Amino acid sequence: MTRGNFILKGDIAWSKDPKTIETKKGAFLVCREGKSAGVFQHIPGEYKNLPVIDYSPALIIPGLTDLHMHAPQFGFRALGMDEELLEWLNKRAFPEEDKYADLAYANRAYFFLRENLKKSPNTRIVLFGTMHVKATVLLMKLLEESGLVCLVGKVNMDRNCPDYLREKDAAASLAATREWLLECGNGAAGGGGKVRPILTPRFIPSCSDELMEGLARLQKEFSLPLQSHLSENRKEIGWVRELCPKSDSYGDAYAKYGFFDGKAPVVMAHCVWSDEKEMELLRERGVYIAHCADSNTNLSSGIAPVRRFIEMGVPLGLGSDVAGGTHISIFRAMCDAIKVSKLRSVLVEPDKMPLTVEEAFYLGTAGGASFFEKAGFGPSGSFEAGCELDALVIDDRTISFLCDLSVRDRLERVLYLSDERDIKAKYVQGGEIETR
Amino acid sequence: MTRGNFILKGDIAWSKDPKTIETKKGAFLVCREGKSAGVFQHIPGEYKNLPVIDYSPALIIPGLTDLHMHAPQFGFRALGMDEELLEWLNKRAFPEEDKYADLAYANRAYFFLRENLKKSPNTRIVLFGTMHVKATVLLMKLLEESGLVCLVGKVNMDRNCPDYLREKDAAASLAATREWLLECGNGAAGGGGKVRPILTPRFIPSCSDELMEGLARLQKEFSLPLQSHLSENRKEIGWVRELCPKSDSYGDAYAKYGFFDGKAPVVMAHCVWSDEKEMELLRERGVYIAHCADSNTNLSSGIAPVRRFIEMGVPLGLGSDVAGGTHISIFRAMCDAIKVSKLRSVLVEPDKMPLTVEEAFYLGTAGGASFFEKAGFGPSGSFEAGCELDALVIDDRTISFLCDLSVRDRLERVLYLSDERDIKAKYVQGGEIETR
Repeated sequence: MTRGNFILKGDIAWSKDPKTIETKKGAFLVCREGKSAGVFQHIPGEYKNLPVIDYSPALIIPGLTDLHMHAPQFGFRALGMDEELLEWLNKRAFPEEDKYADLAYANRAYFFLRENLKKSPNTRIVLFGTMHVKATVLLMKLLEESGLVCLVGKVNMDRNCPDYLREKDAAASLAATREWLLECGNGAAGGGGKVRPILTPRFIPSCSDELMEGLARLQKEFSLPLQSHLSENRKEIGWVRELCPKSDSYGDAYAKYGFFDGKAPVVMAHCVWSDEKEMELLRERGVYIAHCADSNTNLSSGIAPVRRFIEMGVPLGLGSDVAGGTHISIFRAMCDAIKVSKLRSVLVEPDKMPLTVEEAFYLGTAGGASFFEKAGFGPSGSFEAGCELDALVIDDRTISFLCDLSVRDRLERVLYLSDERDIKAKYVQGGEIETR
Repeated sequence: MTRGNFILKGDIAWSKDPKTIETKKGAFLVCREGKSAGVFQHIPGEYKNLPVIDYSPALIIPGLTDLHMHAPQFGFRALGMDEELLEWLNKRAFPEEDKYADLAYANRAYFFLRENLKKSPNTRIVLFGTMHVKATVLLMKLLEESGLVCLVGKVNMDRNCPDYLREKDAAASLAATREWLLECGNGAAGGGGKVRPILTPRFIPSCSDELMEGLARLQKEFSLPLQSHLSENRKEIGWVRELCPKSDSYGDAYAKYGFFDGKAPVVMAHCVWSDEKEMELLRERGVYIAHCADSNTNLSSGIAPVRRFIEMGVPLGLGSDVAGGTHISIFRAMCDAIKVSKLRSVLVEPDKMPLTVEEAFYLGTAGGASFFEKAGFGPSGSFEAGCELDALVIDDRTISFLCDLSVRDRLERVLYLSDERDIKAKYVQGGEIETR
């Protein structure tokens, strides 16, 4: 078959909008030049000559999108889970990240991560690397070979971190960032690869004002997307208040550095404790939130006000936040988002309805995928005509035993019960990638 | 090898007490007549002739205990998860339970459940059946063949439930209960089987006063353990207040029926909204709580005050509560218990510390296992000498890749990351059971 030109047959489901899962049983998903030409109950005449891959009775759904994860933390996920954020960073995350100065270690660890990402239901991923230029370039190379669509960041940090991880000063950090952009061969947004750079100041406490201002200039010079952390934890917010006394809020501090003025999109992880004013700022500037329910629970951060984000229209997707979160699968992130929204509704805000399966599925597909579109890729996360074709083929027969279910209900069970064994095939931008 | 007389070698871990996980690397767990004779770094002379099964470098830990699950709900777990308790019961649980009037359906569904339980890390399980005598006897027979230790209840319900599931009246329900006790051949506690009966009034709203009083008499006549639901949901508590106007609390209503006076133990699922007085009543009468964190989250019930239960000394174990919960594994229940305790601490009670890995592991092993001891089985849930030997052999090599970890830290990762594929062998009362 010509790469990118084929038809997939199965029971097809995708988000039409945040409230609606569209389903078609025994239907045909047409892929032309790597893009969806739509879902049809019968093959339209113009596509009669395309090869049909019949996956019936499997489910076919869009690939999932992870807006926040830390590549170097995958190897030690699910360790030290009884600790809070700042303790966990110092005892677990930083000592592990230091190991990536050693390229042999980085190669072993990132290869292991890459193989796990291939088997996962995720097709588009935004990742933190470490502060190391070479290791981050290596990560990007490994990911490029996988076929996954990724935005990867070399981390910047020049203060309030262990000596062994601190970049000498703002100038050194900025120079290393330019070196990284040059080496990954992809400095300008729109470079053709599947794996592209995203600027990655760790968070305000670990970046000096001078570094932040320099990064904001780089962001505009190269029209680069940017990721960081925001309002995850109350202690952290208090700390930022001390560090940035002239800012109204943690978010406002990022805005004052100039990060929210660029053309390329910005994604901030967490926003558990954002107040109305900070949310309004994010909405106004079109800043994405990566909602990471599992991590916010594990690190005792709290429960983000996701219903309020949705009401206000802040752009929103889901993040695994490995290794604050323990699992890379965005199916898991969808269920976690639903679950914590129920607890928030019972315990904090009885007037805010919990997330539905429909909404969580939307956030983990089309919602997060729109970030990649803003970052220069084609539209994705859906099977509407014109979308880059990221698709998962899921054999749910062992899960659905005993029950005769609608496609929508089968999808709900897949969210809660499936694992990587159930993924029969996975396509990214119209190309099949290995999952075994 | 003589059944029940052997030695297991591996990296061994068990709860010494709620705060301490004892570990021994490359050690020997001696099994004599189905019971632990202790864990040794070198094989004592008196056991030199026992066969050694070397599972190194696998972990060996006690089997897990599920104090609450609904056997007929396994087939439809992870469906209708956007609904609250009473809606979900009427739309999902009751129509499904009705199908168990058909023994062919019951056989198919319970066989499927049984095969999944064998593969799971659980070795002792307390289950609700349905109100059907024949189907419940069939479930007990299927479970007896598996080698798992189980307490199984025929459900009683004679009001406030759909006509198709309601027992005609209290007398009919009590007669059916006697018939069930006779048919399962195990009416008196201490009957020798691995699977034994437990009285199971569904909950106060679905049982008339006359039925409850009759069941309390049966409980004493046969010295039977008993299970039910308590204070799961605020609407439900309001309903019980209307139904039992003379009782101080939902728990007090059970006490007034006489359920808390028997010799055999009682386990109540949930207790999410128990107040101090109800908790004190449970503690005083030695009533067990089955803490079901996943279910309480999924059904928007809330977060149970587990730290307070522990401080007060209420006997406590974990429950999967399938299908309010979606997963049978008590590893998952341990992690869920830790996670929701963190959210309760952040959002409700900052002065209450979250559960630790040590505590959750204790609750899911020795904590829950003590219920079975009170119900007439031997002690279990630990490897202290004299305990019935329930053991899991877990090959965690894929999980622990990249890290050189202590046995305790490997165990933490197993809680969060393992699944049934990692279980290499499983022993119950000193006998190996099939997990493939």
